Amino acid sequence: MAQLALIRHGQSQWNLQNRFTGWVDVGLTERGVAEAKKSGVLMRETRIEFSACYTSVQKRAIKTLWIMLEEMDRMWLPVTRDWRLNERHYGGLTGLDKAETAEKHGADQVKIWRRSYDTPPPEMAVDSEHNMADDPRYKALGVTVPRTESLKLTLERVLPCFEQEIAPRLKAEQSLMIAAHGNSLRALVKLLLDVSDDKIVHLEIPTGNPLLFDLKGGSLSPTSVRYLDENRAQDIPPIPA
Amino acid sequence: MAQLALIRHGQSQWNLQNRFTGWVDVGLTERGVAEAKKSGVLMRETRIEFSACYTSVQKRAIKTLWIMLEEMDRMWLPVTRDWRLNERHYGGLTGLDKAETAEKHGADQVKIWRRSYDTPPPEMAVDSEHNMADDPRYKALGVTVPRTESLKLTLERVLPCFEQEIAPRLKAEQSLMIAAHGNSLRALVKLLLDVSDDKIVHLEIPTGNPLLFDLKGGSLSPTSVRYLDENRAQDIPPIPA
Repeated sequence: MAQLALIRHGQSQWNLQNRFTGWVDVGLTERGVAEAKKSGVLMRETRIEFSACYTSVQKRAIKTLWIMLEEMDRMWLPVTRDWRLNERHYGGLTGLDKAETAEKHGADQVKIWRRSYDTPPPEMAVDSEHNMADDPRYKALGVTVPRTESLKLTLERVLPCFEQEIAPRLKAEQSLMIAAHGNSLRALVKLLLDVSDDKIVHLEIPTGNPLLFDLKGGSLSPTSVRYLDENRAQDIPPIPA
Repeated sequence: MAQLALIRHGQSQWNLQNRFTGWVDVGLTERGVAEAKKSGVLMRETRIEFSACYTSVQKRAIKTLWIMLEEMDRMWLPVTRDWRLNERHYGGLTGLDKAETAEKHGADQVKIWRRSYDTPPPEMAVDSEHNMADDPRYKALGVTVPRTESLKLTLERVLPCFEQEIAPRLKAEQSLMIAAHGNSLRALVKLLLDVSDDKIVHLEIPTGNPLLFDLKGGSLSPTSVRYLDENRAQDIPPIPA
């Protein structure tokens, strides 16, 4: 049997300000650091021996993972940073807070973007201060930075990372930790629990509370799934029959 | 041209107590954290764009690297943890402080072990509280934990890591950072500067002060080597003719 833990990064500076963050590389707040520590303690208490960790190339997820590994006394575990686990790119909404977004685009339109699986927000302007196209990490990786993404587009880039990197190790019964973002984790949950397009947009994975899957030996079929902190658990989609 | 930065981890709990540490996984002191930050600032000021980082599987080196990457705003750089970059295994001396070692073995014998390239200290007892043979990291890696090492034996396991992992990337003109330990770094300096067995045992690489090599394009031949903080520089062996 392999186990897979999905961890959403703790509160970031822009979460606190209620701004769309996406690919902007914002750090954790003090509360975010505390949430990461809490996740690390919960993970340590499982006494699971993980084989490896995955995260995005964004510091809020990487730092969350570092803090957890330190709490778990597992700093030596191999860590793969993969841009395909990045947060969804929020296009032209990036940097706007809720009020600014509603003012600029109207509350109804914002609701559509929030609730839709496949409607991306407008593209980010090329000259936006938030455009990461020239960032050295993406140049080094040869990655064309998207100008906007729907949840569907996010899943379409998470999928090859899952299939090429993560799934083979799970099938080889290696237990893995993935520290990532609200939407890249939604994509992973959609893949693992076969959640419909309509339902996945409503899934809210809490911060500071790892979501742990038990997988049937040599397969990607979950036999159980639970939040480590039951008192702060959210609804989890059912395990497919 | 590629650049290679070697960074010795900051002060650890056992450095402070003057105890032989070796493979025991001891954390940094507050001063060690400050030294790592200092290294990170010096590295940031070089404005070198590194391609990747290497470190050992020991937390004092890993944490040093993490702190540096955070200072450099390069947390997204790929990091490879390799046990072959671990500190030298001090065998039966592990855990002893200077006074205890002299009392147990005599000051003359201690001097021999400190000054000799190829004389290992006595083996660690199998039932020593410091024996790491059952540690999950070495089990996972399939590594037989040594029971003692001379500097020569340390170099003999650093060498394949250098040849297989590090050298090909340097030859491909990728700039690399290596955060490691007094003796694994001595081994690397010996390889790069062709230092004699007699001289390498006297090389003291300071903490908190990265040692930067410029390498001739596509080769492992240094064209220059310097400490980033010139005021705290130690002697560096000459560049081979």
